[in-house]
Amino acid sequence: MKFKELNSVTLIGLGLLGGSLGLSIARTMGNVKRIGYSHRETTRNKAISAGIVDHTCSNLAESVANSQLIILCSPIGTFEDILIEIQETLQPGTIITDVGSTKALPTKWAKKHLPKNVTFIGSHPMAGSEQRGSDFSRADLFDHAPCIITPNKTCPSKDIIFLQKFWREIGMRVSTMTPQQHDKVLAQISHMPHALAVALINSTPLDQALLCGKGFLDTSRVASGDESVWGDIFMSNARNTDQAITRLIKELIRLQKALKSPSHKQINKLLSEAKNKRNDLVNKKIRRKELPL
Amino acid sequence: MKFKELNSVTLIGLGLLGGSLGLSIARTMGNVKRIGYSHRETTRNKAISAGIVDHTCSNLAESVANSQLIILCSPIGTFEDILIEIQETLQPGTIITDVGSTKALPTKWAKKHLPKNVTFIGSHPMAGSEQRGSDFSRADLFDHAPCIITPNKTCPSKDIIFLQKFWREIGMRVSTMTPQQHDKVLAQISHMPHALAVALINSTPLDQALLCGKGFLDTSRVASGDESVWGDIFMSNARNTDQAITRLIKELIRLQKALKSPSHKQINKLLSEAKNKRNDLVNKKIRRKELPL
Repeated sequence: MKFKELNSVTLIGLGLLGGSLGLSIARTMGNVKRIGYSHRETTRNKAISAGIVDHTCSNLAESVANSQLIILCSPIGTFEDILIEIQETLQPGTIITDVGSTKALPTKWAKKHLPKNVTFIGSHPMAGSEQRGSDFSRADLFDHAPCIITPNKTCPSKDIIFLQKFWREIGMRVSTMTPQQHDKVLAQISHMPHALAVALINSTPLDQALLCGKGFLDTSRVASGDESVWGDIFMSNARNTDQAITRLIKELIRLQKALKSPSHKQINKLLSEAKNKRNDLVNKKIRRKELPL
Repeated sequence: MKFKELNSVTLIGLGLLGGSLGLSIARTMGNVKRIGYSHRETTRNKAISAGIVDHTCSNLAESVANSQLIILCSPIGTFEDILIEIQETLQPGTIITDVGSTKALPTKWAKKHLPKNVTFIGSHPMAGSEQRGSDFSRADLFDHAPCIITPNKTCPSKDIIFLQKFWREIGMRVSTMTPQQHDKVLAQISHMPHALAVALINSTPLDQALLCGKGFLDTSRVASGDESVWGDIFMSNARNTDQAITRLIKELIRLQKALKSPSHKQINKLLSEAKNKRNDLVNKKIRRKELPL
């Protein structure tokens, strides 16, 4: 399908990401009809009154029947059941994607359950918040943020181009890699900040933490994320996460070795390596408008 | 000395902390004369024009001769030489403190070099920024933030009370503990966020980091701090820092074990323990006005 032929999208799950996506589509693709599915009536009603979708549907299989693009915005743990439930009502040529934080497993489930005349390509828009629920939805949540899409070898290139155009229209910077590459990279850049935040908080008694300054609060911020969402993410990418933790432990041991050296030379080298690399990262992100000046 | 008798303070070092302290004293104790020492002429001139101090002095020993309170605001690595240089011009009864991030070593140096008729009590105002230099000075940098003071057993209690009152007047929440307790707690709540941020950045290739979202940037923020300042902090509290890293590695290994369990139960337990503890911490800090609502 060509991107300009898109006229109807179904969002499955209407939390922070589904809600923000609905608002973003309205802002950037005003003529595309948005259908929203949630199993909760209150969530469906809220989505209508907040302008997140044009119509809602309480039946999952029906919600996808007339859309050309289906986006799974519910927790990863729900994906396999959803794919099974929608497989028979999808029109030929439909593109199915998701906004989950790991990609190998959803791609495997799609291959197992979806008919051959539809295309599944995973997406990971790297935007979010430790807040949950459609009440926190924002039309600009995805602006200038990175989005990784993960086609496998069998995906038609026109469908890959379609999905790249879709996320660029939303305002995102799109990268393309395999589901396996994605999961390895994400274990490092997204799951590790979470693992470190959790380890920091869990190793600090509360009475000591109460004396902390801004550094402790920032470093531990993501630990306030929902445990079931993050439990799903970790467990659906367990092997890469385990390997990334091992790499981190090695870095921590390098610091311990430097602390035992008689001179400051070793520790200063590790600290300046980190400072320079992070400053480089921040400057590059500012130039790409992913961060404000 | 009684706090209301304070009429002159010397700030040694006029960077971010010394500069902000000068502005805070002007705001909260308008009648106290502020003398500033820096070895650089440009820094001294800037401090005058920015209203950070009333007078400057290019001679260290002279700068302390007429003040009742001396505050070392330079890097910890400079403290011992400074104490040696000022020891003979201090008036009897003078109180000497500092704003450094570790306390056992400065206390040891003070005991070694200062005359018995003056009092050294370490201070650690837990405020700062990854920015350096007096240009970033702010009169409200210390507002509502925690400050730990670390008298040892021989300090006169009137001098302890004097210093508590001084920091409270600046706007800080004051806690009192021994230098040894302070260094153990700080390794956990201040040095560990830095060690984790450094380990995260150093274990992540830049091309992967460029795809990161807000979580990675926040968790790694403090790694942009100056390597020589942090090298000093780590090395002057090496043993506690080493032990805290060992505790963190243990927590990371707990996460690795949970990842290998067949069910989500273990990982969710670790994640919810962290989430609840951090939310508790943030709520308590909001109630104390250390964080905005």
